[in-house]
Amino acid sequence: MQSTIELLNTTYERIKPHIHRTPVLSSRGINKIAGTELFFKCENFQRGGAYKMRGATNAVLQLSDRQKNKGVVTHSSGNFAQALALAAKRIGIKAYIVMPTTAPQVKKNAVLEYGGEIIECEPTLKAREVASRKIEIEKDATFIHPSNDEQVILGQGTSCMELLEDYPDLDFVVVPIGGGGLIAGTALAAFYFGNDCKVIGGEPFEADDAYRSLQSGKIESNDSAKTIADGLRTQLGDKNFPIIQKYVDRIIRVTEDEIVEAMRLVWERMKIIIEPSSAVALAAILTDKDNFLNKKVGIIISGGNVDLQNLPF
Amino acid sequence: MQSTIELLNTTYERIKPHIHRTPVLSSRGINKIAGTELFFKCENFQRGGAYKMRGATNAVLQLSDRQKNKGVVTHSSGNFAQALALAAKRIGIKAYIVMPTTAPQVKKNAVLEYGGEIIECEPTLKAREVASRKIEIEKDATFIHPSNDEQVILGQGTSCMELLEDYPDLDFVVVPIGGGGLIAGTALAAFYFGNDCKVIGGEPFEADDAYRSLQSGKIESNDSAKTIADGLRTQLGDKNFPIIQKYVDRIIRVTEDEIVEAMRLVWERMKIIIEPSSAVALAAILTDKDNFLNKKVGIIISGGNVDLQNLPF
Repeated sequence: MQSTIELLNTTYERIKPHIHRTPVLSSRGINKIAGTELFFKCENFQRGGAYKMRGATNAVLQLSDRQKNKGVVTHSSGNFAQALALAAKRIGIKAYIVMPTTAPQVKKNAVLEYGGEIIECEPTLKAREVASRKIEIEKDATFIHPSNDEQVILGQGTSCMELLEDYPDLDFVVVPIGGGGLIAGTALAAFYFGNDCKVIGGEPFEADDAYRSLQSGKIESNDSAKTIADGLRTQLGDKNFPIIQKYVDRIIRVTEDEIVEAMRLVWERMKIIIEPSSAVALAAILTDKDNFLNKKVGIIISGGNVDLQNLPF
Repeated sequence: MQSTIELLNTTYERIKPHIHRTPVLSSRGINKIAGTELFFKCENFQRGGAYKMRGATNAVLQLSDRQKNKGVVTHSSGNFAQALALAAKRIGIKAYIVMPTTAPQVKKNAVLEYGGEIIECEPTLKAREVASRKIEIEKDATFIHPSNDEQVILGQGTSCMELLEDYPDLDFVVVPIGGGGLIAGTALAAFYFGNDCKVIGGEPFEADDAYRSLQSGKIESNDSAKTIADGLRTQLGDKNFPIIQKYVDRIIRVTEDEIVEAMRLVWERMKIIIEPSSAVALAAILTDKDNFLNKKVGIIISGGNVDLQNLPF
């Protein structure tokens, strides 16, 4: 069996021809405000507009020929829907994407453009699971979970690997926590490739299931998840939670106002479009400034897929 | 006397330590839509958020010690205001910026942050000129015009020099036309450093003074200039017009809807923030697709300073 470090290296070699090596940007203005040196790893420039392309690609590339013939299925209203459709298209296989009827048309259009087949369902987790299970059975398609899947987790970790290759001496890497795939992969990458680099999660108070999960020691849910950070409304899973427990330093929670303010700061100062979920990481640093003072801090800008018709400014 | 090619090279060496070498980005999605290969030179990532920093820096660096002691003055409600304040701050001299009372607070704040002193005036060209002339006399400050100044024109040309260094075989470079400084500098750079590279201007129908000037052979004004492309409401000057007449291939005019659509396309596909004036160049290509088919086309994304409170989406 391969060690984790070997698994990460193999994953990176596998997906490298299919993904962009995203740039790392910085901003003197934001550094000044934060009182620290920040390195923004821009997965908003990744194919499909988010880091999700990494994990989706890693998963589809390892399917057997029989599985490839039958295609893949997932349920997601967000970036993983687009990423899986795009990754599947790239290797010429079918992707069934279960999306709630309430998903924004712009997200549906992106999936269709990438050649995905959309199956609509009611906007509940139960309905999504039923609909995608049905496709698994009827079409014999392989289900790929957006965040609770080992290959997906390893794929998401490659963004932090690239970041640490560019900046080996980061003291911290801060990422948003939604389903837990990004932070789990990042925590593994930082542990094996960093130089005593701590991984910290940013999470909205309005969907602080991961924060509470780390406190209680079991996976907690969000009763409601009324956060603007739409990518972070999901909860952890049994594959990523143990990794998060073991390797993540801590979680910082932020208010909705802090998220919007951090998002505005990046848009205005850096001239790049980041989605609210990505702003959560910067918001976490700004709300806990003293702990990052004069450090080198990486931030993974998870994505840039926003609905321009519906901005918080 | 130095030749133009020597002047451009000297200018570039002079300002290089003070400016960012901005990246050149591309988008498969937009290439597909345009039917051509586009190279976006991202001056929205330039210091001060626009290419204007290049020309402003070139101008202030050539002041005599006596002039430096007295400071500089300009009138601008836009990017040149910020750029001159920033360039002046960098070499430790005073900048007086005449701005109309109607200028957005966000622009005033940027000037103040860069240490500029704002002098408010009525929002007419006449009032601006009177106010800045008054500062010239009272403070003995050196007036630097935002676009009709040889050193400013040469500085603006350096963006195209960098672009052609990265992509020497561009068939076209397309830029927006406002006061004429960017296109004049670009046209010189393309003529001396390009390989039969044509420079084309994009201009809103609502402020098509440059288009009409090329037709009539004299500098025309805009009666009204009700375009969203706020950077392009100005008119040409006697220093840049002859260069434009001699070296610019032609001007393509675009509608307001075309500007907004091109802006949306860049925001959605490239995840970068560009201002409406910058979108005019892409809009020009899209409205005249046949003439750019299967070519290599550079676009200078002039800036990214937008008011997030007041977006056209």
